[in-house]
Amino acid sequence: MKIAVDAMGGDKAPEVVVQGALEAASKFDVHVILVGHEASLTGLLANHKTDGRVSIHHCEEMVGMEESPLKALRKKKDTSIGVAFRLAKEGVADAVISAGNSGATLAAGVLALGRISGLERPAIASIVPTENGPIILIDAGANVDCRPAQLFQFGVMAHAFGCSCLAMAKPKIALLNIGEEGSKGNELVRYTYDLFEKSSLNFVGNIEGRELLRGDVKIVVCDGFVGNVALKLTEGTAESMARLMKRELMRTFLGRIAFVLGRKAFFRFARELSYEEYGGAPLLGLKGIGIICHGGSSAKAICNAVNMAAQYARNRTVEKMSLELKSYNLGQGI
Amino acid sequence: MKIAVDAMGGDKAPEVVVQGALEAASKFDVHVILVGHEASLTGLLANHKTDGRVSIHHCEEMVGMEESPLKALRKKKDTSIGVAFRLAKEGVADAVISAGNSGATLAAGVLALGRISGLERPAIASIVPTENGPIILIDAGANVDCRPAQLFQFGVMAHAFGCSCLAMAKPKIALLNIGEEGSKGNELVRYTYDLFEKSSLNFVGNIEGRELLRGDVKIVVCDGFVGNVALKLTEGTAESMARLMKRELMRTFLGRIAFVLGRKAFFRFARELSYEEYGGAPLLGLKGIGIICHGGSSAKAICNAVNMAAQYARNRTVEKMSLELKSYNLGQGI
Repeated sequence: MKIAVDAMGGDKAPEVVVQGALEAASKFDVHVILVGHEASLTGLLANHKTDGRVSIHHCEEMVGMEESPLKALRKKKDTSIGVAFRLAKEGVADAVISAGNSGATLAAGVLALGRISGLERPAIASIVPTENGPIILIDAGANVDCRPAQLFQFGVMAHAFGCSCLAMAKPKIALLNIGEEGSKGNELVRYTYDLFEKSSLNFVGNIEGRELLRGDVKIVVCDGFVGNVALKLTEGTAESMARLMKRELMRTFLGRIAFVLGRKAFFRFARELSYEEYGGAPLLGLKGIGIICHGGSSAKAICNAVNMAAQYARNRTVEKMSLELKSYNLGQGI
Repeated sequence: MKIAVDAMGGDKAPEVVVQGALEAASKFDVHVILVGHEASLTGLLANHKTDGRVSIHHCEEMVGMEESPLKALRKKKDTSIGVAFRLAKEGVADAVISAGNSGATLAAGVLALGRISGLERPAIASIVPTENGPIILIDAGANVDCRPAQLFQFGVMAHAFGCSCLAMAKPKIALLNIGEEGSKGNELVRYTYDLFEKSSLNFVGNIEGRELLRGDVKIVVCDGFVGNVALKLTEGTAESMARLMKRELMRTFLGRIAFVLGRKAFFRFARELSYEEYGGAPLLGLKGIGIICHGGSSAKAICNAVNMAAQYARNRTVEKMSLELKSYNLGQGI
């Protein structure tokens, strides 16, 4: 399995990205193609035994974190993310991962590989750790204004991905909403409810934000605006709580002792809620494989993302997704 | 100051509501009118010295938590929430608070008191405790589908309320969005951005979910769908984290000791993030005062909500809000 890694994308690129790629190549049955500036990358690979499982594909340019994705891709023909997806298109790579500009990853993926036939819009499936194992939140930010048929397709894709790559069996699917009854919510969610209800998916209705991290419902569907706000809010709340708790503990002598004694548990627990375990968010709906990693990804996150990309390819998930989408014959304009 | 309290509304009504009302009457300079079933309420007041500062206004019916607000209000003419707002309309009460069906509180408030002239839609302003004092999140669930002019008016109302009742001075206002740049977000937010930018409010642009609980931005504006999801997600994340942390600590001997030693700090810290301090979410935009309390409100929350309602009335906040809204002459249909 050959995985193209955008070596120039991410807050700590290329160093940390290369480190993660090296880890993946030594741990998993993959070949990693580092796409980026050869001179910088060669230096980082020196002193590492790669057994020929890591190679470099040179390119001159990159898309910056703050650049407008489409403008950057139009202007620069030789960016690391663009070239990585071109390798996937040519069959040289089986999958692409990037911790760079996520809009550019989405755009470059669609431009190079195209969408699954019959699919309206690709979406970002964020794999969220919960009290009860990972769940999929889709869409995590690719589509800020959606129609019901699009939301429904997001659910179908996440279902195929969850079953194929996360060992989910008949996962419960719900819409993220502001109440449990089918009559609740905004227009978009109310119409989407009906589409899910008519399907053969294991649709359990609406889920409120309060229940999300319990992890009982495995696939949570919403538009990309709500999904992105939700994800960042979850991260922010966890961080704020950790800071507040430390501040409170530090105020008293007993609290400080408690903090020192409980240190390991605090870290273990923080790790449980960390995105590192899955490494990245698969971009579902491409005729191929793309994984979007957090800009601040650690080497471990990159390593795990490479592994997920390999599984994604090995399990023929795109084909399964395509068949599942085809089985729902949605009319246009819903 | 006379505050009408819907004694029948809330998961623990009427017992806990009455207890909170009694506390408020003994602590603050208010007279509480308990609106509800006289026979049940008289029993709860027995053995309490109220110095004539708590009275009962009898009514026969109530709106259940699961009932459709408009249908219930149309069918039952003598519900506790309906009667409470009627007392406000007649000038017998200065404000209304309820921990009951929030849709019914909103509807009964609008029906009895009407909207501030020129205002399109009333909204729920949730007062959220953060690392850096309380902030206002508006709309917390009254309006699931909004137009830009409505979101803008939410911001103006929250500004007037924050300055008048929460001692905010030139509070920073931002839109809840998925990125910081003005070009980010869905259509609704992008158009609303321009309206705020042209205003004389202290608009600082967009805020991401990650920053919300830092509490630097004091007024955060979004539609009621996003706001309600966000609020419940914050609560749920905090609860999940607390459970996960306890589970991790309990796994080891040192962890268990840490938990016992740190107990007080844990509770203090949980209290800091609790909604109890402010008791309820003011319903902004009525020609009068309504406060929506959490269904599971404690006596303390009810007591604090009564105090907030009294301040709201005392500071003539509705008049200030009305003047501030008038100063922005928005065209129709935006």
